[in-house]
Amino acid sequence: MSQPTATQTFRAIDVIRKKRDGVELSQAEIEGLVSAYTKGEIPDYQVSAWLMAVVLKGMTRPETAALTDAMLHSGEVLDLSSLPARKVDKHSTGGVGDKTSLVLAPLAAAAGIAVPMISGRGLGHTGGTLDKLEAIPGFNVNLSVAEFRRVLETCGCAMIGQTAEIAPADRKLYALRDVTGTVESPYLICASIMSKKLAEGIDALVLDVKTGSGAFMKSEKDAVFLAELMVETGERMGKQMVALITDMDQPLGNMIGNALEVVEVMEVLRDAGPEDLRKLCIETAGWMLYLGGASGSVEEGKQQSAKLISSGKALDKFRQMVELQGGDARVIDEPKRLPQAQHTMQVASAKAGYISSMQCEHIGTACVILGGGRERKEDSVDPSVGIVLHKKVGDRVVAGEPLATIYYNSESKAERARLLIEGSCEIAEAPPAKRPLIHRIIGKVAGQLRGAREKN
Amino acid sequence: MSQPTATQTFRAIDVIRKKRDGVELSQAEIEGLVSAYTKGEIPDYQVSAWLMAVVLKGMTRPETAALTDAMLHSGEVLDLSSLPARKVDKHSTGGVGDKTSLVLAPLAAAAGIAVPMISGRGLGHTGGTLDKLEAIPGFNVNLSVAEFRRVLETCGCAMIGQTAEIAPADRKLYALRDVTGTVESPYLICASIMSKKLAEGIDALVLDVKTGSGAFMKSEKDAVFLAELMVETGERMGKQMVALITDMDQPLGNMIGNALEVVEVMEVLRDAGPEDLRKLCIETAGWMLYLGGASGSVEEGKQQSAKLISSGKALDKFRQMVELQGGDARVIDEPKRLPQAQHTMQVASAKAGYISSMQCEHIGTACVILGGGRERKEDSVDPSVGIVLHKKVGDRVVAGEPLATIYYNSESKAERARLLIEGSCEIAEAPPAKRPLIHRIIGKVAGQLRGAREKN
Repeated sequence: MSQPTATQTFRAIDVIRKKRDGVELSQAEIEGLVSAYTKGEIPDYQVSAWLMAVVLKGMTRPETAALTDAMLHSGEVLDLSSLPARKVDKHSTGGVGDKTSLVLAPLAAAAGIAVPMISGRGLGHTGGTLDKLEAIPGFNVNLSVAEFRRVLETCGCAMIGQTAEIAPADRKLYALRDVTGTVESPYLICASIMSKKLAEGIDALVLDVKTGSGAFMKSEKDAVFLAELMVETGERMGKQMVALITDMDQPLGNMIGNALEVVEVMEVLRDAGPEDLRKLCIETAGWMLYLGGASGSVEEGKQQSAKLISSGKALDKFRQMVELQGGDARVIDEPKRLPQAQHTMQVASAKAGYISSMQCEHIGTACVILGGGRERKEDSVDPSVGIVLHKKVGDRVVAGEPLATIYYNSESKAERARLLIEGSCEIAEAPPAKRPLIHRIIGKVAGQLRGAREKN
Repeated sequence: MSQPTATQTFRAIDVIRKKRDGVELSQAEIEGLVSAYTKGEIPDYQVSAWLMAVVLKGMTRPETAALTDAMLHSGEVLDLSSLPARKVDKHSTGGVGDKTSLVLAPLAAAAGIAVPMISGRGLGHTGGTLDKLEAIPGFNVNLSVAEFRRVLETCGCAMIGQTAEIAPADRKLYALRDVTGTVESPYLICASIMSKKLAEGIDALVLDVKTGSGAFMKSEKDAVFLAELMVETGERMGKQMVALITDMDQPLGNMIGNALEVVEVMEVLRDAGPEDLRKLCIETAGWMLYLGGASGSVEEGKQQSAKLISSGKALDKFRQMVELQGGDARVIDEPKRLPQAQHTMQVASAKAGYISSMQCEHIGTACVILGGGRERKEDSVDPSVGIVLHKKVGDRVVAGEPLATIYYNSESKAERARLLIEGSCEIAEAPPAKRPLIHRIIGKVAGQLRGAREKN
């Protein structure tokens, strides 16, 4: 073990002990720890002990804000003040079939808002925005900050991956958390997400915190806790924040898999597509437009969003962004130009009845097995494979009727995926109680609106 | 950060997560972690996260025993079965003025018991047996295992420091705990102490767990918890165990400092010396003799011990051990041959009354300041300096009367020590309630004896 110098040990160990003993850390202590670790002045073994203490002892709101702030300022914070438009982004905690970002960035941009979106890749059973965008031939998610700014200025939205300059502390801490059992902490998750999002130089942020069998936060209680933490942390840092707690007890929309999800995005932008996906896009866009000052209320923002879709303006914006980021925009009119799987296979229902539940995580895993996601960060992704659901929770099926179609390139993988999908759908005699798509809305802004409505 | 291999990461992270989530680890999991870490197959940053999870989530008794066993078997376990005598050792959790080991090893050996004692050095405010022994010119605590065995066979006791072969996992884990805020866990303390003691190849162990202002476990509750943990762990491994919870709310005996403590040890072995030190030595020896089969009861063991002292046999044994370990045995009859401090200074009482309490840790720290102890492991120790107390808790003092004499080589250090000692003695108008020297006795053997007494 390489020995840290005496002074540094002293400080780091004090911070570890305080957290271990449940004493609140000061902003200077957290700042010192993050900054020294990013510079390589504190060894991994001290930081991992501290991370475990955070997982088990938690953090106060000021500590969480201080950690977010320290991670945010470990790297570049974009200054987009030269753009006249208000900057609004959205972030989802991840799920299965969640392709809303691809609809929302061009949709909000069509309303005159600037959307500087830095996204991630899929990991485990969930998909990632960057993987979906890369299903479009030529689409470049690795823009430099200068190119990112140029695309943003030209069309109002740009979608890239994390750059080396943004929150380097998060990259280093995440790699350590990944191998030390310290990923699962709402405080650390909040600081990780918020430090990257706030580095985008935004004015407001709409969070989509998923809950249910396909979400990281399976229980609504955990989802609400994380949402409140992120909202409060953003508000403390002067941002307008709102979090929608939304349902991920079954996949969102019908298509799962990178190219297939791009197809479904274009359906929504053409004013078609599945009901749940459309509804969530409109609801989230309503909030983005309201917080971005493009509408006087959320309701008005939703109506305006629906019009921007039906008029084709949102689709035009999508086309413009794809072109500016080097993608083949012909896929928009000719979806066959997207990567195509070689084979398809039906998953038939074994019996008649109503689909009472779906093990959503298993459906996500089925897509990973097909090659559409990654188990480990190093894995590559096959954009062509995936699953199209023909039935969702509450739908009636007859025996032998197809529940889903699998798009695949490997027979053995398809067979494993089929068994998983089959097993994930529970069929009952009566339809289940309906779960709402949007469980709750959290944030000061949401509270003020509710207050105003009650007064009127 | 150097990446561990995939399989090893997988296993280590599973063990970390389980402990984090409060799930009991199997013996194989604990064994695997300790063995892989000792071999350098698991990185420090994973083990420090696991250690912090242990500190905050605790361990079950089987887990604690498994950890002790794994650390014990990470190195050599002495096989002393060729010695016909029963092997009994004692261990103290450390305090100020605690020189009982130097009395007890020769005393128990004089009764025909084998005492293979592996001890430690002083750290922080507490003294260490090895430092005291090294105050005797020439005394060698760094014997090889073969030499250790030879001394033990010849005179029935031998006192050395930890060798490289004994419990290497403990050395590696302790170094990591020291810099990651994971020292303070009764489970880890238990495994660290017991793995080293059980490596001595003993049949029985008498623990002296200190409680009070000069102990690591300030509260009796914490001391009892640790004692029960160590006793149960030893019993699970087939050893006869007993723990005395003893008072460390003031220094033990009157002398503090390495050479001074050797002087006081010789006083006790000459049937003199302060009452509290004599009493604790006789009580502990009584247990050692009883567990070692040299006496039919603890009471008988105590009487026998008193006789071995008054007859001079214990002192003869001490002399023999000093000679066998290369020490200058002339110090026994001519204590002036021990290292002598150049100066002395009195600490006078500022007012009249009764000493109601002593901040025992501060008195230990005063000795460290004089140079008699070490703040860091690398520090060297001045054997000649120290403190002789003229008054103990409950004693009456008049204003100006000396409370203590400081033996020093540096005026400025002596002045700091004087202020600390002065401040550590509280003087009240009435004498305080008397604290017992032995608070409690813990262990199956103790319970059986109590049961037998109650029946009679």
